[in-house]
Amino acid sequence: MDGVAPAPGALPYYVALSQLLGLTVVAMTGAWLGVYRGGIAWESALQFNVHPLCMVIGLVFLQGDALLVHRVFRKETKRTTKVVHGLLHVFAFVIALVGLVAVFDYHKKKGYADLYSLHSWCGLLVFVLYLLQWLVGFSFFLFPGASFSLRSRYRPQHVFFGAAIFLLSVGTALLGLKEALLFKLGAQYSAFQPEGVLANALGLLLACFGALVLYILTRADWKRPAQAEEQALSMDFKTLTEGDSPSSQ
Amino acid sequence: MDGVAPAPGALPYYVALSQLLGLTVVAMTGAWLGVYRGGIAWESALQFNVHPLCMVIGLVFLQGDALLVHRVFRKETKRTTKVVHGLLHVFAFVIALVGLVAVFDYHKKKGYADLYSLHSWCGLLVFVLYLLQWLVGFSFFLFPGASFSLRSRYRPQHVFFGAAIFLLSVGTALLGLKEALLFKLGAQYSAFQPEGVLANALGLLLACFGALVLYILTRADWKRPAQAEEQALSMDFKTLTEGDSPSSQ
Repeated sequence: MDGVAPAPGALPYYVALSQLLGLTVVAMTGAWLGVYRGGIAWESALQFNVHPLCMVIGLVFLQGDALLVHRVFRKETKRTTKVVHGLLHVFAFVIALVGLVAVFDYHKKKGYADLYSLHSWCGLLVFVLYLLQWLVGFSFFLFPGASFSLRSRYRPQHVFFGAAIFLLSVGTALLGLKEALLFKLGAQYSAFQPEGVLANALGLLLACFGALVLYILTRADWKRPAQAEEQALSMDFKTLTEGDSPSSQ
Repeated sequence: MDGVAPAPGALPYYVALSQLLGLTVVAMTGAWLGVYRGGIAWESALQFNVHPLCMVIGLVFLQGDALLVHRVFRKETKRTTKVVHGLLHVFAFVIALVGLVAVFDYHKKKGYADLYSLHSWCGLLVFVLYLLQWLVGFSFFLFPGASFSLRSRYRPQHVFFGAAIFLLSVGTALLGLKEALLFKLGAQYSAFQPEGVLANALGLLLACFGALVLYILTRADWKRPAQAEEQALSMDFKTLTEGDSPSSQ
């Protein structure tokens, strides 16, 4: 599995399936809000609906895609891939921020309490961890200060926490969906109302999207191969930063 | 990272922490049911309470521990480790089955509908996948028929699906917890009732247990080292099954 990575084989099909699934999830969230919740606006009760749509687009679909960047762009330079990865996370964060403002603003106008539910506790945790992960990732991998060995040691932690935060985001979305269903449908939920069935299916598809992104991310033979020039550059960088160069000191 | 694995370093501390967290989660579930839900029995409304307790013990704590067996028992033979892994999964499944019977029986006595919620859909999916994974895992790794190369090719899939089913189990537990809170507390949930705060904390600890098990499972330098005798046995087995032995046909 190590050394020169084999051709990615079925990877493009899995990536295509993940995109199909991700877009279906976004479209179904839009359809659910449009058909059963009166659509989206920045006023009245419809302001709440901005929250689930933004969170599904930002913290599920775009965050998932940001994780896949290193698998999809296999021939671009590592720097380009890192920049795309970092930028996708910025887009995801900004969209999620709009979703967050929407729900706090809606709660304030209605006089509802904030941050009392398990969904909100998990969501807050995701937000704080997401921001921390981005800042630490940026300072290790894009800011030019960190040494080669420090980057190598931090990389597995960055990958693990990235995956964990993404999975917690998907779990938080499922909790939010469930909350929205129980608040509105109440006892009618058990009568297999169309809205309940649609939202349950959406929940399962969200979980499938999370699982598929995790599968693509963790499959050993789909890891990004180190390119010859990059290996040479890394070695140069290592030599420079670790002071083994003949010209050092 | 390959070849002879380094000493596991901090692994024992992480495993100890996971056990502490797992037992805390089981104890907190018991405390929640005891203090706020009247305790546990196989009759009246208390029969429902068997469900969350069994699911947390079986599909969260024991399933998590079963995944860790290959990290914890590093010096035992591979066969012993596999048997312990398979048996822990059987215990987990049987306990979860009791929890499943409890909730279906309770619903039947009360005349409630079954399988309408996202929690139940996810739970059903977990159950079916868990059983399939066990059967396929058994026939590949414990039943003596599968060839060495077939085992090697299936192993990464088995590990991925094992982790995914475990994470879906944790997610399903969070959905169930949320459902139980909203059904009973309703609007009082937003008034920071002690039960709601305790259950939210329990939900976060469940998520932490899931993340910690995943961390121990995926850390590359904590993978189980192949022992010299096993490598020799595997080679023999490979030779035998792939027909390269001098005595074959």
